[in-house]
Amino acid sequence: MNPSEKNVLLIGAGLVGSLLSNYLTKHGYKVEIFERRPDMRKDKISAGRSINLALSERGWRGLNGVGLSDAVRKVAIPMAGRMIHHQDGNINYQAYGKEGQAIYSVSRGGLNCVLMDESEKSGATIHYNERCTHVDLDKNIASFENIVTGRKQTLTADLIISSDGAYSAGRLSLLFTDRFNYSQSYLEHGYKELTIPPAADGTHQLDKNALHIWPRGGYMLIALPNMDGSFTCTLFFPFEGSPSFTELNSKEKVSAFFKEVFADAYSLMPTLKDDFFNNPTGSLMTVKCFPWTWKNQVALIGDAAHAIVPFYGQGMNCGFEDCVELNDLIVKHNHDWSKIMPEYQLQRKPNCDAIADLAVANFYEMRDLVGHPDFLLRKKIEARIFDKHPEKWVPLYTMVTFNEFPYSEALSRGKKQDQIMDQVMALPNIEKVWDSPEVESKILSMLS
Amino acid sequence: MNPSEKNVLLIGAGLVGSLLSNYLTKHGYKVEIFERRPDMRKDKISAGRSINLALSERGWRGLNGVGLSDAVRKVAIPMAGRMIHHQDGNINYQAYGKEGQAIYSVSRGGLNCVLMDESEKSGATIHYNERCTHVDLDKNIASFENIVTGRKQTLTADLIISSDGAYSAGRLSLLFTDRFNYSQSYLEHGYKELTIPPAADGTHQLDKNALHIWPRGGYMLIALPNMDGSFTCTLFFPFEGSPSFTELNSKEKVSAFFKEVFADAYSLMPTLKDDFFNNPTGSLMTVKCFPWTWKNQVALIGDAAHAIVPFYGQGMNCGFEDCVELNDLIVKHNHDWSKIMPEYQLQRKPNCDAIADLAVANFYEMRDLVGHPDFLLRKKIEARIFDKHPEKWVPLYTMVTFNEFPYSEALSRGKKQDQIMDQVMALPNIEKVWDSPEVESKILSMLS
Repeated sequence: MNPSEKNVLLIGAGLVGSLLSNYLTKHGYKVEIFERRPDMRKDKISAGRSINLALSERGWRGLNGVGLSDAVRKVAIPMAGRMIHHQDGNINYQAYGKEGQAIYSVSRGGLNCVLMDESEKSGATIHYNERCTHVDLDKNIASFENIVTGRKQTLTADLIISSDGAYSAGRLSLLFTDRFNYSQSYLEHGYKELTIPPAADGTHQLDKNALHIWPRGGYMLIALPNMDGSFTCTLFFPFEGSPSFTELNSKEKVSAFFKEVFADAYSLMPTLKDDFFNNPTGSLMTVKCFPWTWKNQVALIGDAAHAIVPFYGQGMNCGFEDCVELNDLIVKHNHDWSKIMPEYQLQRKPNCDAIADLAVANFYEMRDLVGHPDFLLRKKIEARIFDKHPEKWVPLYTMVTFNEFPYSEALSRGKKQDQIMDQVMALPNIEKVWDSPEVESKILSMLS
Repeated sequence: MNPSEKNVLLIGAGLVGSLLSNYLTKHGYKVEIFERRPDMRKDKISAGRSINLALSERGWRGLNGVGLSDAVRKVAIPMAGRMIHHQDGNINYQAYGKEGQAIYSVSRGGLNCVLMDESEKSGATIHYNERCTHVDLDKNIASFENIVTGRKQTLTADLIISSDGAYSAGRLSLLFTDRFNYSQSYLEHGYKELTIPPAADGTHQLDKNALHIWPRGGYMLIALPNMDGSFTCTLFFPFEGSPSFTELNSKEKVSAFFKEVFADAYSLMPTLKDDFFNNPTGSLMTVKCFPWTWKNQVALIGDAAHAIVPFYGQGMNCGFEDCVELNDLIVKHNHDWSKIMPEYQLQRKPNCDAIADLAVANFYEMRDLVGHPDFLLRKKIEARIFDKHPEKWVPLYTMVTFNEFPYSEALSRGKKQDQIMDQVMALPNIEKVWDSPEVESKILSMLS
């Protein structure tokens, strides 16, 4: 069958679904997307539940493959490093990578609109307000209910791909099949979005080319720049205990807490008390499952297959990489989905498991370690070895963010490097001899 | 409120649900049970999907608490040890515990009937063919559809307890609540029930007071005695690969395989070829989740809260222990469910996690290790230390099976003992000096 005669039904027009539709229409597939929400280009996206996005290498590659990276670059703000805000008011800056490397702050809604515009331009049809109620895996039928009109419909397609996010309806049908492995696990921390508005002259009130972090051990606040001069801040905070969302149950307590713990941010947040109680408290979940496909005619992609927590800034980047690799397999197997689907899931699964684990681990790094002098020294030593021996040592953050090492390889190399660094940091006087030839040759010998 | 005025709705009249109903009616609760299947006392239970049950200490305690252990003992066959059938025809016997200790083979269906009879006698009502379609957690409403008549009904109760097994409908409602942690993970092995009929004179064709195991490394066959002189055999076998269920796809292949690998069993299985293709291939799943309760008015119990694989023979025993501990908490907190429910789930969760992990680990022990001489020596050394120092050393199997150590304590003590035994087994000439005073004092010193 000519691929252009194949119908593809996508469940979900989020970031991954709408990027994927662009890849598929370029191959000639007929694509229809059913999206639960209204058209966000007409209605305003609901605030307080986005977690700002940080585009990095894998994400750019995904956009590039459908010719969209230039358009997105215009609305993306480079963040070349972390700005650490200590509780005593001190601030220090840690570059993420080498000169010229950065991650990019983008608006989830804005990016989604660009992708949907392009999707429709290239021939896909997007239906809004269509909630998927069921996928009949064996018959390849998806059922929808329109949440505005109440109309129910049942549709079939050659391929059904579920790109409907962490709470995927498509995945739910797989959950009840025999031997479907599944886990959803929540952190004991939730998140709350807050805001730092632009200055009176419209400029950013903090350095806009950094990701700001207020690490406080058991919790943290972060801030990412927006194009309008504001920052979207996110508090990652325990649900229970002290301090916790449960404990901060009045405007007075919120104010007092922020004033003490996040003093410099507090002074820039005039709407803190209202935002805190108006915006929802989100939870943070990791989903792992397998298989991702059914009879080579139904597949999961993006968060529907592997929802991760946001602490490595890789959720969208990983989903875009799904699209890139699926696209490569379409080419490799010349549209033979009986070969594409098995290889797609076997190739992606270990890498998505790896980034899921890295993302959880990075929470501890961000909220705690980044504030310690040891951490800085460690990064300095790694950067030096990377600089002198780039073929032998690549820092984990760089492997994940500025390269396209498979995540599983980044994880295993990162673990090995970490063990070496633990030993290096235990060397006597390491803070004085860190850039000595002895330390360098010790590291190289441990590597081999 | 007087407890006798409280209505309890149980979903599922399986082993745990019907035992629990007996505990609840004795306290005066009004209990109604809704069971998806027909009344097994009238219709024949479906063959081939039961996995024979081995009652041990925790199970007996559960029955004892409602005065049923004497009745059950009459239909239970003691198995005092494992009978290992090697491929070369050799057989050896390993006692499970001390003289007089045994696990008991019982028929799942028979036991369930005893429990349901008693349940109705003590005032509970059981409704059959009632499939639970939904539990409204906040309104405390359960909906059912009768699978024979199609009639739908919606019921409320003061407490709803979901005792509806590994594929629990009650748990499904919890799955969609925020911060509900859940995992279902399948083994790569499935199971198939087979049978060894009685001899012509009605007697058992193998020693009836043992659990028979044919360990073959990557897979195994086991057999448990029935009261009618037959044995129920279960093949635990890979789904894929070689050998596997996929590979054994003809009667000839099944015959040839059994003849070679399970020769002595094969000669006793005249209906093997038919049984193999008539009986379903079951899958083996572990379910972990949390929380197990909602607003102190809905709870999960038994497999619905913690389905485990059958290799420690503890699934039912663990579920019965849930009932015993819940009953103890009812007494302790004088029917105050706002105290009973939180304590119930916090107390049971770590223990049920522990037995889940032990059950998976025991598969490797049963299908592989039990056949090795090293394993026998190891058990002999452990038995000797247990005998001489019962206050310091209790073998893991004994802690789990013949005692009521919390499973989590059994797991952690078992791990420690295992590490010691690894070192002991590495001692030079251990097969000669295993019962020497030196080995004994070495073990004691490692313990402290």
